[in-house]
Order: sequence, then structure tokens, then C-alpha cells
Amino acid sequence: MTNARIIDGVALANVFREQIKARAASIRQRGGRVRLDAVLVEAGDNSARVYAENQAKTSQMLDIDYRLHRIAPASLETAFDEIAGRVLLLSSDEDVTAMMLHVPMPQGVDPYRVQRLIAPEKDVEGVNPANIGNIVYGRSSLAPCTGLAVMKMLEWVWQQKRAEGEKVHETTIPFLRGKIAVVVGAGDVVGKPIAVLLMRQEATVISCNKWTPGLAEIAKTADVLVAAAGVPGLITAEMVKPGAVVVDVGVNRFKGPDGKVRTVGDVCFDSVSHTAGWLSPVPGGVGPMTVAMLLLNVVEVAERRLK
Amino acid sequence: MTNARIIDGVALANVFREQIKARAASIRQRGGRVRLDAVLVEAGDNSARVYAENQAKTSQMLDIDYRLHRIAPASLETAFDEIAGRVLLLSSDEDVTAMMLHVPMPQGVDPYRVQRLIAPEKDVEGVNPANIGNIVYGRSSLAPCTGLAVMKMLEWVWQQKRAEGEKVHETTIPFLRGKIAVVVGAGDVVGKPIAVLLMRQEATVISCNKWTPGLAEIAKTADVLVAAAGVPGLITAEMVKPGAVVVDVGVNRFKGPDGKVRTVGDVCFDSVSHTAGWLSPVPGGVGPMTVAMLLLNVVEVAERRLK
Repeated sequence: MTNARIIDGVALANVFREQIKARAASIRQRGGRVRLDAVLVEAGDNSARVYAENQAKTSQMLDIDYRLHRIAPASLETAFDEIAGRVLLLSSDEDVTAMMLHVPMPQGVDPYRVQRLIAPEKDVEGVNPANIGNIVYGRSSLAPCTGLAVMKMLEWVWQQKRAEGEKVHETTIPFLRGKIAVVVGAGDVVGKPIAVLLMRQEATVISCNKWTPGLAEIAKTADVLVAAAGVPGLITAEMVKPGAVVVDVGVNRFKGPDGKVRTVGDVCFDSVSHTAGWLSPVPGGVGPMTVAMLLLNVVEVAERRLK
Repeated sequence: MTNARIIDGVALANVFREQIKARAASIRQRGGRVRLDAVLVEAGDNSARVYAENQAKTSQMLDIDYRLHRIAPASLETAFDEIAGRVLLLSSDEDVTAMMLHVPMPQGVDPYRVQRLIAPEKDVEGVNPANIGNIVYGRSSLAPCTGLAVMKMLEWVWQQKRAEGEKVHETTIPFLRGKIAVVVGAGDVVGKPIAVLLMRQEATVISCNKWTPGLAEIAKTADVLVAAAGVPGLITAEMVKPGAVVVDVGVNRFKGPDGKVRTVGDVCFDSVSHTAGWLSPVPGGVGPMTVAMLLLNVVEVAERRLK
């Protein structure tokens, strides 16, 4: 029994960050700018503030001009108007090339109603519905960061397979032609967009949800198995075809008996690692990649502006 | 061997037209308007003109105010600007509630680039990418007419099943929970959007394309089988689970030995009708329903305006 090879999200994110830095430098050499405008609502949620601070640091390291727009709504009643107004302003500002909105929103503000106001071509988180639609239609699009992270991890696996002489589909894109990809979990933000991205790569895509009959049997047909159900340990070795590529998108946090908070995925890592050919861990898999994908979209947008 | 029950698109479209007429009357009684603005480019294609004329007649019958905007571009060079300009004008015109663009476009004009300029809330053909994205995100949306036709036909079948006491999922929406839906064909305009619409109804969705290994076996797992491959006679009785609901979206035209042009679907109707529980014919299935769905979206939009 061989152990699965690990799809190391931390290492791969570092590779992407190097690429992003090099591309950003090249854009500036050609007279372009690389900039990210982020909106942060001061609503007492500390996690968004911490995320924004980390983003500022990473952006600085990669020479991306990061501008944080803090909004402190006067009242809950005016919150939507104030946030939406700022987003519209940034959407129409010619100097803004890439923008994002930190969540959560204050109580009573539906993030979707704000996100749809982000100009699709500046929407580096890929949250405007037009960007999902563009993926369906095969048009230039900014994919949602989690979905993009999964796809880049799969692309990397296929590069390794190719480099090692394994017989895989000869062209880079669509690299999943003829493969069966099973997505366990059909949530609107992660599962459904990933299914669409996999269709784009010409896989046969099976979208499962919690009412799927015979999930184990279906999962076992997968060449690519994406776990995005939000159920700790849902995917066991019996559900995985030997040699399959397994990507774990689950992020399940709970307090252990020692009182420490632990994060686990949807995949029984220990048992599945004996069956799968490739496996991404949690933590250290999709998570760090997702953060890097935002900045990948930022340079992507900046390059399009140059053309 | 019992014969499949026919999903009669002509009869069902008539039922919808009656509903549309009643809803339009009710909207007018409440002070609203029901109007459809269509753009037709005079580019020498007769089929679009004929379609527009039929649309005008049907709209009149249903008391929908139909306005046709004819554009005769001065030259191929200016065609895009003239068409896009008109679409933008209608998109921003407060009096326009529902609009559509007749295709084909003149040579050199990419219909997608024009369709994405249609205001999403007026886009009754559901061709703006934002409307596909809204389906993924489960938000109020105007679905593409072909996909909507398939979903309404399936809904009708489930109504029949329920009325006849068959044990089916108890609520109306999502009515495909726990069912396996296989879509054969993953084109951007029909196959992919239908897969997304089926996910919305909480089916386990399997999207197949021409590189799918073991298509027959996969198709045979389907409770709902949607054929949208554009391959005449692709779906044979051996690929259909006894009692399954089969919807044929294929439109394949060819000249028979007698010189007459015939239209056939993707399903071997004669053989499959002995296996399937429900089956839509071609012609007389999805086609007439698709035409009716456009006007269903028109009254839908008009009702939303009233609220």
C-alpha cells in the first residue's frame, strides 16, 4: 500500500506568490499598475480586520498597491446605502482595477446585494454572478477564489503526472477531458461553482448533495474527488478509487478534548491517504491556496488592462 | 411492455399561454404594463424576421405590447456599435421592462458581447451571464428559455405523479431532491445551464459530454435523462432505466430520401418509448415550450415591477 502524494497548499501558494511578484514587476516595467482596493466595514468583527491586515502585508511583499477603504456606518438603517455607495464609486473609478469586499456585513445587509454591484471585470473574488455565468459560457472570467484554488491544485497534479511520463490528456486545457469528477456538496458558494469549473475542463461531472442515493458508490467512480460538504470525516477510504486525486475543501472547526480548537476537513486523511493517489490536507491545502488566488486575480486583471 | 406517457410540448405550451394571458390581464388591471421590446437586425436572414413576425402575432393574442426595433447597420464596421448602442438605450429606458435580441447577428458581431449589455432584470431570454450566475447562487433570475422549458416539463411530470398518488418528494420546490438527473451534452448554451438548473432542484446531477467513458451505464442510472447532445438517435432503449423521465432537447435537421427536411431529436423515440415512463417527442416537445417560456419571463418581469 503506497501512501498518497500530498498536494501541499502552502508550498504551492508560495510558488504562485513568486509568480505573482514577477508578473507584478513586469506589469510595472511596462508602465502598468497593480492595485487592490478592499472595502472593510467596521462592524466589530475582528476576523475581517485581521484578514485585511494580513492582506496589506502580503500585498506589500508582492509590490501590490493595497488600499483599504474603511466604512463606519452611521446606523444599521443607513449601512446598506453607505456600503453600496462606496462599492459603486470604486466600481466606476477608472483608477481602481481590482476590488473586493470584506465579509461579514453588518446585520441586515445581504452581502449578495452588495457583491453584485462590483464591476465584473474588477471582481477579483469572483463573487459577482456575472463571473459565474461567464464561466458557464466559457468567456474570460474571474473565478471564485476557492474554486480557482481547487482547479489550480488539480492542474498542478496533472503537470506532475505529465512530467513523470504518466499517460494523461496531452493538452493543458481542457486537462480533465475523459475523466470523472465527483463533487460532494452542492453549496451555492463552493460546490456548485466548482462543478461548473470542472465542466469547463470537460470532465464528466457528478454533483452530489446530502440527498444523493448511493454516495459511496458514486464517489468511488471518481478520478477526481472534491469534498465540499462541510461534514468532518465524510469521505472514507472505501469511497475512494485507488489512485484517485482527492481535494478536501472542508473547513470544520471544533474544540478537542484538550480545549484547543482544531480544524479538520471532510476527508478521513489517515485512511484515505492509503487509497488515494494524491490528497490535499486540511489545514495546509485549499485554504492557503484560496488566499493566494485573490492576488493571482489581481495581477490577471492588471495584465488585461495593459493589453 | 407499457408505452411511455408523452410529454406533449404543444399542449403544455398552450396551458402556459393561457396562464400568461390571464396573468397579463391581471397585471393591467392592477395598473401595470406588459411589454416586450425586441431588436431585429436587418441582415438578410429571413428566419429571424419570420420568428419576429410570429412573436408579434402571439404577443397580440396574449395582449402583450410588442415593439420591434429594426436596425439596418450602415456597414459591417459600424454594425456592433449600432446594435450595442440600441441595446444599451433599451436597457436604460425606464419604459422598457422586457427585452430580447434576435439572432443571428451580422458577420463579425459576437452575440455574447451584445447580450451581456442587456440589463439582467429585463433579459427575458436569460442570455446575460449574470442570470446564469444568479441561478447558481439561488437568486431571483430569468433562466434561459430552453433550460426553463425543460424544467417546466419536468415540473409538470412531477405534478402528474403527485396527482396520481405516486410517492414523490412532497414539496413542489425542490422537486428533484434525491433523484439522479443525467444531462447528455455539455454545451455552453443548453447543456451546462440545464445542469445548473437541475442542481437548483437538488438533484444529483451528472453532466456528460462526448468524452464520457461508459455513457450508456451512466445514462441508465438516471431518474431524469435530458438529451442535449445534438446527435440523432444517440439515446437508445438500452441506455434508459425503465420508468425514467426522458426529455429530448435535440434538434437535428436533415433531408430524407424523399427530399423533405425532417427534424429528429437525440432520442430513438420508437425504442425508448417502450422503456421510459415519460418521454418528450421531437418535434412537438421542448421546441414549442421554449417559445412559450420567453413570454412567461415577460409576464414574470412585469409582475416583479408591480411589487
